[in-house]
Amino acid sequence: MNFSSKILEEAVNQVSQLPGIGKRTALRLVLHLMRQPEQQTDALAQSLLSMRNDLKFCKKCHNVSDNDLCEICISHNRDQNLVCVVEDIRDVMAIENTSQYKGLYHVLGGKISPMDGVGPQDLNIPSLINRVKEEGIQELIFALSPTIEGDTTNFYIYKQLSDLDVNTSTIARGIAVGDELEFADEVTLGRSILHRVPYENSMKS
Amino acid sequence: MNFSSKILEEAVNQVSQLPGIGKRTALRLVLHLMRQPEQQTDALAQSLLSMRNDLKFCKKCHNVSDNDLCEICISHNRDQNLVCVVEDIRDVMAIENTSQYKGLYHVLGGKISPMDGVGPQDLNIPSLINRVKEEGIQELIFALSPTIEGDTTNFYIYKQLSDLDVNTSTIARGIAVGDELEFADEVTLGRSILHRVPYENSMKS
Repeated sequence: MNFSSKILEEAVNQVSQLPGIGKRTALRLVLHLMRQPEQQTDALAQSLLSMRNDLKFCKKCHNVSDNDLCEICISHNRDQNLVCVVEDIRDVMAIENTSQYKGLYHVLGGKISPMDGVGPQDLNIPSLINRVKEEGIQELIFALSPTIEGDTTNFYIYKQLSDLDVNTSTIARGIAVGDELEFADEVTLGRSILHRVPYENSMKS
Repeated sequence: MNFSSKILEEAVNQVSQLPGIGKRTALRLVLHLMRQPEQQTDALAQSLLSMRNDLKFCKKCHNVSDNDLCEICISHNRDQNLVCVVEDIRDVMAIENTSQYKGLYHVLGGKISPMDGVGPQDLNIPSLINRVKEEGIQELIFALSPTIEGDTTNFYIYKQLSDLDVNTSTIARGIAVGDELEFADEVTLGRSILHRVPYENSMKS
């Protein structure tokens, strides 16, 4: 692209480094900001800087937090015996949005994936094992995505816990609510039959 | 969405104010920045601030510029007698990318659109009329989008110029190179026949 301004070019280059944003979209965003009041750009830049400099991760569960411990870990209303193991903080948000879960979390920060060079040592697995040892956790719920990497990670953690007195479970795999049965893949459909639940239970929500 | 951090929430809110970016995309972008080196966020924020504070518009043609006059207006290699009238600076970039045009530009900053409350007084039309009067421009090329608003704007400017000694032209409307004839709309196809060019001319590129 042919910019008549180095400043504009630099702004477009910076914005287009964000994932999923190409040069054309970056230019559109930057020109939009130019048309808005100066305060909007200021507020955007400041909040990005503040986010990068001040945002912390909870020392216990590795969720994002404004303090050393996150709001969920310090809450008295959460079941301290139950820990849900998730890949990243977006999964925490997704589960929190369901309002169905009242335990704690543990954010691994990824999944074991030799293809991407991610091994167990790159994830928050040691701190999870420590939590199980020290906090008297009764049940770990594995809530990783049902992929090969997710299953590998579940199995690795499960093996690490073999000497410890803790129950493990995984979230149910099955047909999504509202989905058409005929379009479900065979593995999911097969599992949903294998792990069928008593009809009376299925009516609870 | 349920953020466990006010700082994160503020960053996501700010980013999601950009056009075409919802909360989910904003969260993805923000979390991406969190995983990158701190310098990337710094550079992004600084370039946005610098863009908003230091970027100027050319006093002559209203194109973006790092100085009072843009690089195109001060260039000695451009034909000073030819001015291409465009809607915004993205159109300047698009035409510059063709490398087919060696004249100057005039950026209107929009099109006359009563529906959106944009009248002639909101656009850079008076400065265009002044340029025609003072700079001895020989030809104005209207290169606005071929919409009702674009045609209205062309006609308004054309009327304003009626007492002045300047030629006007519009960019050719026709079938795009590579397009299938059968899928062209009737108006475009009709115009392309009405404004057919001698075959010898069509072979020049």
